[in-house]
Amino acid sequence: MGIIEGMPAGLLIRVTDIDRDLARRQGGYGRGGRMEIEKDTVKICTGVRWGRTLGSPIGLMVRNKDWENWRDKMSPDPMFLNSAQPVTHPRPGHADLAGVMKYGSKDIRSILERASARETAMRVAVGAVAKRLLEEFGIEVISHVLSIGNVFARVPKASVQELKKRAEASELRCADPEAEKRMKRRIDEARAAGDSLGGVFEIMVANAPIGLGSHVHWDRKLDGKLAAALMSIQAIKGVEVGAGFGAANKPGSQVHDEIFWNKKEGFFHKTNMAGGIEGGTSNGETITLRAAMKPIPTLYKPLRSVDMLFMKPFKASIERSDVCAVPAAGVVGEAAVACELASAMLEKFGGDSIDEMKRNFYGYEDYLKARMEVEEEQR
Amino acid sequence: MGIIEGMPAGLLIRVTDIDRDLARRQGGYGRGGRMEIEKDTVKICTGVRWGRTLGSPIGLMVRNKDWENWRDKMSPDPMFLNSAQPVTHPRPGHADLAGVMKYGSKDIRSILERASARETAMRVAVGAVAKRLLEEFGIEVISHVLSIGNVFARVPKASVQELKKRAEASELRCADPEAEKRMKRRIDEARAAGDSLGGVFEIMVANAPIGLGSHVHWDRKLDGKLAAALMSIQAIKGVEVGAGFGAANKPGSQVHDEIFWNKKEGFFHKTNMAGGIEGGTSNGETITLRAAMKPIPTLYKPLRSVDMLFMKPFKASIERSDVCAVPAAGVVGEAAVACELASAMLEKFGGDSIDEMKRNFYGYEDYLKARMEVEEEQR
Amino acid sequence: MGIIEGMPAGLLIRVTDIDRDLARRQGGYGRGGRMEIEKDTVKICTGVRWGRTLGSPIGLMVRNKDWENWRDKMSPDPMFLNSAQPVTHPRPGHADLAGVMKYGSKDIRSILERASARETAMRVAVGAVAKRLLEEFGIEVISHVLSIGNVFARVPKASVQELKKRAEASELRCADPEAEKRMKRRIDEARAAGDSLGGVFEIMVANAPIGLGSHVHWDRKLDGKLAAALMSIQAIKGVEVGAGFGAANKPGSQVHDEIFWNKKEGFFHKTNMAGGIEGGTSNGETITLRAAMKPIPTLYKPLRSVDMLFMKPFKASIERSDVCAVPAAGVVGEAAVACELASAMLEKFGGDSIDEMKRNFYGYEDYLKARMEVEEEQR
Amino acid sequence: MGIIEGMPAGLLIRVTDIDRDLARRQGGYGRGGRMEIEKDTVKICTGVRWGRTLGSPIGLMVRNKDWENWRDKMSPDPMFLNSAQPVTHPRPGHADLAGVMKYGSKDIRSILERASARETAMRVAVGAVAKRLLEEFGIEVISHVLSIGNVFARVPKASVQELKKRAEASELRCADPEAEKRMKRRIDEARAAGDSLGGVFEIMVANAPIGLGSHVHWDRKLDGKLAAALMSIQAIKGVEVGAGFGAANKPGSQVHDEIFWNKKEGFFHKTNMAGGIEGGTSNGETITLRAAMKPIPTLYKPLRSVDMLFMKPFKASIERSDVCAVPAAGVVGEAAVACELASAMLEKFGGDSIDEMKRNFYGYEDYLKARMEVEEEQR
Repeated sequence: MGIIEGMPAGLLIRVTDIDRDLARRQGGYGRGGRMEIEKDTVKICTGVRWGRTLGSPIGLMVRNKDWENWRDKMSPDPMFLNSAQPVTHPRPGHADLAGVMKYGSKDIRSILERASARETAMRVAVGAVAKRLLEEFGIEVISHVLSIGNVFARVPKASVQELKKRAEASELRCADPEAEKRMKRRIDEARAAGDSLGGVFEIMVANAPIGLGSHVHWDRKLDGKLAAALMSIQAIKGVEVGAGFGAANKPGSQVHDEIFWNKKEGFFHKTNMAGGIEGGTSNGETITLRAAMKPIPTLYKPLRSVDMLFMKPFKASIERSDVCAVPAAGVVGEAAVACELASAMLEKFGGDSIDEMKRNFYGYEDYLKARMEVEEEQR
Repeated sequence: MGIIEGMPAGLLIRVTDIDRDLARRQGGYGRGGRMEIEKDTVKICTGVRWGRTLGSPIGLMVRNKDWENWRDKMSPDPMFLNSAQPVTHPRPGHADLAGVMKYGSKDIRSILERASARETAMRVAVGAVAKRLLEEFGIEVISHVLSIGNVFARVPKASVQELKKRAEASELRCADPEAEKRMKRRIDEARAAGDSLGGVFEIMVANAPIGLGSHVHWDRKLDGKLAAALMSIQAIKGVEVGAGFGAANKPGSQVHDEIFWNKKEGFFHKTNMAGGIEGGTSNGETITLRAAMKPIPTLYKPLRSVDMLFMKPFKASIERSDVCAVPAAGVVGEAAVACELASAMLEKFGGDSIDEMKRNFYGYEDYLKARMEVEEEQR
Repeated sequence: MGIIEGMPAGLLIRVTDIDRDLARRQGGYGRGGRMEIEKDTVKICTGVRWGRTLGSPIGLMVRNKDWENWRDKMSPDPMFLNSAQPVTHPRPGHADLAGVMKYGSKDIRSILERASARETAMRVAVGAVAKRLLEEFGIEVISHVLSIGNVFARVPKASVQELKKRAEASELRCADPEAEKRMKRRIDEARAAGDSLGGVFEIMVANAPIGLGSHVHWDRKLDGKLAAALMSIQAIKGVEVGAGFGAANKPGSQVHDEIFWNKKEGFFHKTNMAGGIEGGTSNGETITLRAAMKPIPTLYKPLRSVDMLFMKPFKASIERSDVCAVPAAGVVGEAAVACELASAMLEKFGGDSIDEMKRNFYGYEDYLKARMEVEEEQR
Repeated sequence: MGIIEGMPAGLLIRVTDIDRDLARRQGGYGRGGRMEIEKDTVKICTGVRWGRTLGSPIGLMVRNKDWENWRDKMSPDPMFLNSAQPVTHPRPGHADLAGVMKYGSKDIRSILERASARETAMRVAVGAVAKRLLEEFGIEVISHVLSIGNVFARVPKASVQELKKRAEASELRCADPEAEKRMKRRIDEARAAGDSLGGVFEIMVANAPIGLGSHVHWDRKLDGKLAAALMSIQAIKGVEVGAGFGAANKPGSQVHDEIFWNKKEGFFHKTNMAGGIEGGTSNGETITLRAAMKPIPTLYKPLRSVDMLFMKPFKASIERSDVCAVPAAGVVGEAAVACELASAMLEKFGGDSIDEMKRNFYGYEDYLKARMEVEEEQR
């Protein structure tokens, strides 16, 4: 269940727009059997009428198809009390131990269901609505996989559109078909060994206007907000903007994007080391972010832990699971980024209806254009 | 000028607590002459009486010692209108171009003064107050430099205390004296070449209790908040928690921290790949974060840009500047992290006075202890 | 659909706790036939397991029993486009005209369904959860009706408990049975005349501890927050704390509550003109608030308006409606106030589980007690 | 010290704009000697350059001219510890008792200085900046006094401009000169009796566009926000919108504002019982609010209280004070309302510069106009 507040009225949203991304999240080579059970679809409960937003909060529901199996075990009704054995073995790499201590729970299941990446289904649904808003302004958010395990893709010099096409055509959402083959082999090996794999995905945002975010205060910086959005995805341990950690190793003369101008394009850069954000503000270039995902912590090859009842060593239980969820995480990353960008657009352009927001947006575009031209006349 | 809201009453805060960190921010081998002008000190204007907080907002002021030179050029008074030439050459790697476009300014100076890392002085002052709060609970936030340019430190296996001691003793805040020598040489070379250098620093938080942050919603995850705090520091392009990007390249069996228990310590881990945060929640281990800083974009060796009046190519002006500010950025990073942790502590423990907050904290500590013991009796 | 974030784990919540208030909201002499259709019940979708909160967001759903009649007319699916005639006559006293202008809608129905007091069903459901939290600390929120039309109750000097009992026993939630009779007669007359009635209700909060809210900044003042909560209820046009507008007409010597002390009670007041809040902070006395509700704007006796298509004068349509909803509004008021108090309790006491929150609360209670006693010893 | 975040760049702000309101706050018949000491003026420290905002936070400072007398007693420096006797007699009607209990202070002075209405000086300064923004859109916020003690003004039917002129010309900010005379007499009597007086003031907002605030969620309703803003002013105990409590006593047929249309004005109302807000949204009419102020609690004729050291009865100390501060409270009310309206304008229209905000605003105005006309053609 999710509620979106602040979307302008009049925006076209259909169930299919959301379901498409829910399906993309469930795909990817290397997923366990669980995905087959779930086949997510959204129900739009409120805030949309005849396909258009009303300006009021949008209520979404993604039913858990696996719910039948959990009806009693997770029921809100006290009559089902103790209808399932408590889980008492905290799993390494999960919220389990910190969660039960923080919230005072005796049963790890009271923590793990919410901490589960299952929760990202709703995040993807909300992100799909944010993407619909961005789409109205020509802004597109895509993802592709850069590495899995220690297999690295060689990303071709290509447009965002081309990278997207390649990623969508790939079972691992990887734009390098050659690397994809090796990644699959690596996944098969890990599965055979009862192990799991992480990796790195990249998010690109095409056509974001100059001026989203702000340099004026740290908590308004676009890069900070995007970093929080990505780092808060389950299993993400690192985030980069543009050249990222690589920028730290090079001299300044090789890291900064020089500024050019011509009549047709106005100001532009030939490089994009900054990843589209300077001073916490979008600079008109493609916004480029990378996130590192640790391997899924649920292993067939169990890790050592401790039983919380008897404080005896225990091997974390063997559970059915995915080997690698990096492609899916990329789709979640798109959603996380789309939500922040939609917020930034709403903050800059205001507007209670999509028509008003567009009017304000085009007014700004005209201003930008005029500004680059008018001053030219002074030449 | 800064205002801190939400600090409990009764916390001891002295000007010297804050000035110490302001001085640490201004240190570091490789700084330009500018630092000598500024020698920052704070003035506590409101919210503290006889050394103790009152519970009301704390108003801080850090005067710019360079202010005399800017009195007219940055005066709020319209009578000084046009008392300085407008800056019309946007510098690559800065907020300049995006800023003037967003805010409609004709003079880049209206953007660059606020976007400047000068603003981090106040962030450090606020962070020093946050550190005072954390200190009451035994929590310590330290930083040390991992790399500058492409010179990497070999960090010794050592306690947080030991690393701190080494960093504080080093001109580059680096715990590896051997690497520090090579870093200095690298800085001298860069200075000679009119170039600048970036690097990576690490932030460690010792003694944070289990249970800060939360797994229940993405915007309450501690790692997400810390990532935003660090990424929003000027020139930061990448953030890692624990094993970070490295975690993406290893199999799951090598990435997760197994859980152990003994009578004395209760639950503990022997490794800390997670960097002290699992499921968005602190797990009782040292919180470990890394941030990558790009080289300072103000170079003696100017980059290509465009004059905004005549749209003619222009070489960004040669300005006096630092060669490398990574050690200082580490100090700012401490402040950014300390603020988030103080917020997380206040969120978890509430309390309007430091006494009340401590009472709540110790109650929780006792609960944690009892929980690890009581259940032992069941053995 | 509603989501509650921030409730501690371990709080007992049953569907019946919520349904009781939903039923109370639907009662009251003077309601139209609409209430019979709706008989609201809540479904707890997430965040509660076996009767106890999990610490994660609590998802609630109150189905509209009238939904079948609106399935197509309000469907999110574009296939039902234009399955109902647009509403083009804005009703005086409603959000209709301002709403369509703001949101750019062509059909007033896109505004009126959300603006409807129907929305308060969810507010009452959320408030019932807040009341459950408050109940754990002995805090009780009640309402009773002070006036309807121009018939005024004479409120007996009685405890909050006694007033509650009387209000619950009354069809108009009025503690003065004599006045209630006259109110009913007034309602019957208004119904006969095709007119509607407003009135005033009072909210009382018993046993709120000293120290909720704060004097330190305007946006933390408890009275300000409570005023916003009440004024934002549909049709509310006035809010008072304690003596309210009456306080403006008396000299200071008659308005302020003198302070006393005795061994048993510690500090106390003999009067409560302040309504339990001084300096934006609860002072330990019963919090007392009043809200004025305008008459329901949907009249059988239609008001003049304008058709938005042809700009021709039009009499607002005759619709089935209530004559008087003041008793129901009082129940909504309880919910609004309960939510703010629950927030204030969570802000002051923190705590991720109800056990932790209670530990912190009792620690504070002990401190208050000790403080009033210890100092006594100095006598 | 105050910081304003979110003001667009390019807005003209001069010290005189702010000082004018600071002086208006200090005026009014019935003030004590204290006002003469203070003569407030603002210093703009940051965020404004050559008279124009920069888009960055605006830092304001209003020095306390009385500061010299308090230098040691309120110093942040621990060296002045105990340089003043603690205040141990909580005053009825103040934050004193609740404040020291909440914050654990031993000295009431640690509470009372911040709780003092002295703090409203900064609120007025911030409000003056908000008014400057509103002025750019033709929006004006005024106040006048309706009653003092139990003397009530007869407000003439007059334009907002005319009421303002009359209020500004009156020592009591009252638009009825006849009532003003009686009010003054009443104040003189109260002073002679060592007593104090409260009253009611009205705030009016002319030319607010249709569509500020929103009906979609309770916490976005404009009336709720304005109620919070006014109720949070020191000593305010009641708030009304439009007909307010009076609306509760009348039948629906007399309370709602019928809707009319003509070619020139578009939609309009002939009455304004709603006070310019319907469904939580501004409806294009003058926004009208009233606030009730209790008498100042610092009396020459002391009230009974208790000494907190020895728990002995004590008469609250005799202090120099005002007899009546209602006119000043009205000026503070203007500021409180202006801040909320400025926020509502920024939320609706966005815009990082005043030019952009105006472009968006005029686009909306044109849309409103077109909408009222275009449809006329369909006649």
